[in-house]
Amino acid sequence: MMTPAPLFERAALIGLGLIAGSMAHAMREGGLVRRIAGHARSAETRDTAREIGLVDEVFATAAEAVRGADLVVLAVPVGAMAAVAAEIAPHLAPGAIVTDVGSVKQSVIDAVAPHIPPGVHFVPGHPLAGTEHSGPRSGFSTLFRNRWWLLTPLPDSDGAAVERLAALARGMGANVEMMEPAHHDLVLAVTSHAPHLIAYTMVGVADHLRQVTQSEVIRYSAAGFRDFTRIAASDPTMWRDVFLHNKEATLDILGRFAEELFVLQRAIRMGDGQQLHDYFTRTRAIRRGIIEAGQDTAAPDFGRSAGPAA
Amino acid sequence: MMTPAPLFERAALIGLGLIAGSMAHAMREGGLVRRIAGHARSAETRDTAREIGLVDEVFATAAEAVRGADLVVLAVPVGAMAAVAAEIAPHLAPGAIVTDVGSVKQSVIDAVAPHIPPGVHFVPGHPLAGTEHSGPRSGFSTLFRNRWWLLTPLPDSDGAAVERLAALARGMGANVEMMEPAHHDLVLAVTSHAPHLIAYTMVGVADHLRQVTQSEVIRYSAAGFRDFTRIAASDPTMWRDVFLHNKEATLDILGRFAEELFVLQRAIRMGDGQQLHDYFTRTRAIRRGIIEAGQDTAAPDFGRSAGPAA
Repeated sequence: MMTPAPLFERAALIGLGLIAGSMAHAMREGGLVRRIAGHARSAETRDTAREIGLVDEVFATAAEAVRGADLVVLAVPVGAMAAVAAEIAPHLAPGAIVTDVGSVKQSVIDAVAPHIPPGVHFVPGHPLAGTEHSGPRSGFSTLFRNRWWLLTPLPDSDGAAVERLAALARGMGANVEMMEPAHHDLVLAVTSHAPHLIAYTMVGVADHLRQVTQSEVIRYSAAGFRDFTRIAASDPTMWRDVFLHNKEATLDILGRFAEELFVLQRAIRMGDGQQLHDYFTRTRAIRRGIIEAGQDTAAPDFGRSAGPAA
Repeated sequence: MMTPAPLFERAALIGLGLIAGSMAHAMREGGLVRRIAGHARSAETRDTAREIGLVDEVFATAAEAVRGADLVVLAVPVGAMAAVAAEIAPHLAPGAIVTDVGSVKQSVIDAVAPHIPPGVHFVPGHPLAGTEHSGPRSGFSTLFRNRWWLLTPLPDSDGAAVERLAALARGMGANVEMMEPAHHDLVLAVTSHAPHLIAYTMVGVADHLRQVTQSEVIRYSAAGFRDFTRIAASDPTMWRDVFLHNKEATLDILGRFAEELFVLQRAIRMGDGQQLHDYFTRTRAIRRGIIEAGQDTAAPDFGRSAGPAA
């Protein structure tokens, strides 16, 4: 085994949740970064991070954590990005690369870019990976394997900085793709934000029915409902911020969804079996596409494992 | 290992898809039935069943298959139950138990019960188990393990027949529960039918967007959308029939769902972060309930396997 030189001397992870924690594990495993500093707002999270040795040094403030770092990763909820960027700006090392892992890109760019001093490279990013768990203990090194890491460089982003960050993502097992920020936000509204809101809604409906008890819903959830509950268990703060910061695209998709739902409701009411059958046949083909693209397995009932092979 | 006497001498499986096939495997593995006959409407399915030895004998008609059977399982789409019941009625052996595995109970009872001759016991049932695959090759013996098998006996159902059927379901690894047919249909509308329609709708929406290509939807599906596609890949004929035969309960839940969705859409539009956060915190608790009830695992990204341990 060849051990390549680290891509970065010192990484600072701002936020120590699922994504930052998984990055810490993956960066260490791959020898990608020489030293990892970290900061979390909550003292409890910082204590846990110290206890499990998640990073090399834990700092009480973001400003301290970024000192001397050539890589800074903003891994906080989207709504907290602006405040963090303002706090760290005066302490960023010249030539440092700043990136983020937010699920929305345009609003993060609007929040962060104005604070970035000249000579520091801001390259926004978004790893499409996650689980329903959160917190400093939830990370694992294989989270990014065979998943996409989207980078949305700005028109004036430094090409070498973008490439170095892409190499880091690839080193953690991800596939890297470049995208326009606005297009990113629309693609994610379809593939992630609207599905999450719909899952939250479905779980919420089940929660307040009178005739069907919650224990019955839980007991018989394997009949389909269960598939919604995993994503409806995702971190509430993170998702509140996603919806508030990708408002237009999400509302657009939800509007289309409501229209489509009404068409199918009407087909049920009218007893139009042919329309239902045609619709369900089309959606089946999309599932096959996902399996062929290696983003899920054909094993019945998912059969997914925590770390899908690359 | 003690080998108990079989519960039935001769089972007839009408329909040879995922559920019947899994029953054949599970009944054999458990030594629950001495001999298994089968029938499928499609010649291709019958040929496959013969080729893989799914059952002991394959018949071209349902009438032939049920001759001499003390257990008859109707495992066809809900919309086909009436015709099958009419066909087999004159050929049912005295004392036979007839059950079904349909996802809707009241309409199956309405369709089947009038055809059942005196001296034959009809005990409707519904195993809450399945995968997105269908056809004679899709079955496996552990499908029912740790899953619920709901029985909805009629007021005049024979107690001994109900108990014998319950023993069979338990022998295949399922947990058995009795339920009123109408309550069953409402519970399933919440836990299964509405979620399936919503998943079909979400996948359908993604399918006809212009600005986001289908290849992008597939590529980036792991961000949440993927969780919808599994259940939206389920058998189109089966599901068409479910919606048409559990129309009222499904439309009721879908109506509630649309209301709830609009409330959340409005919260996004108004920027009401507190309402979103409260909602998402509530739904997270339901997920925990499902894990505690053993109907899913807490392993990140599902971590499910085809045959969950009992």
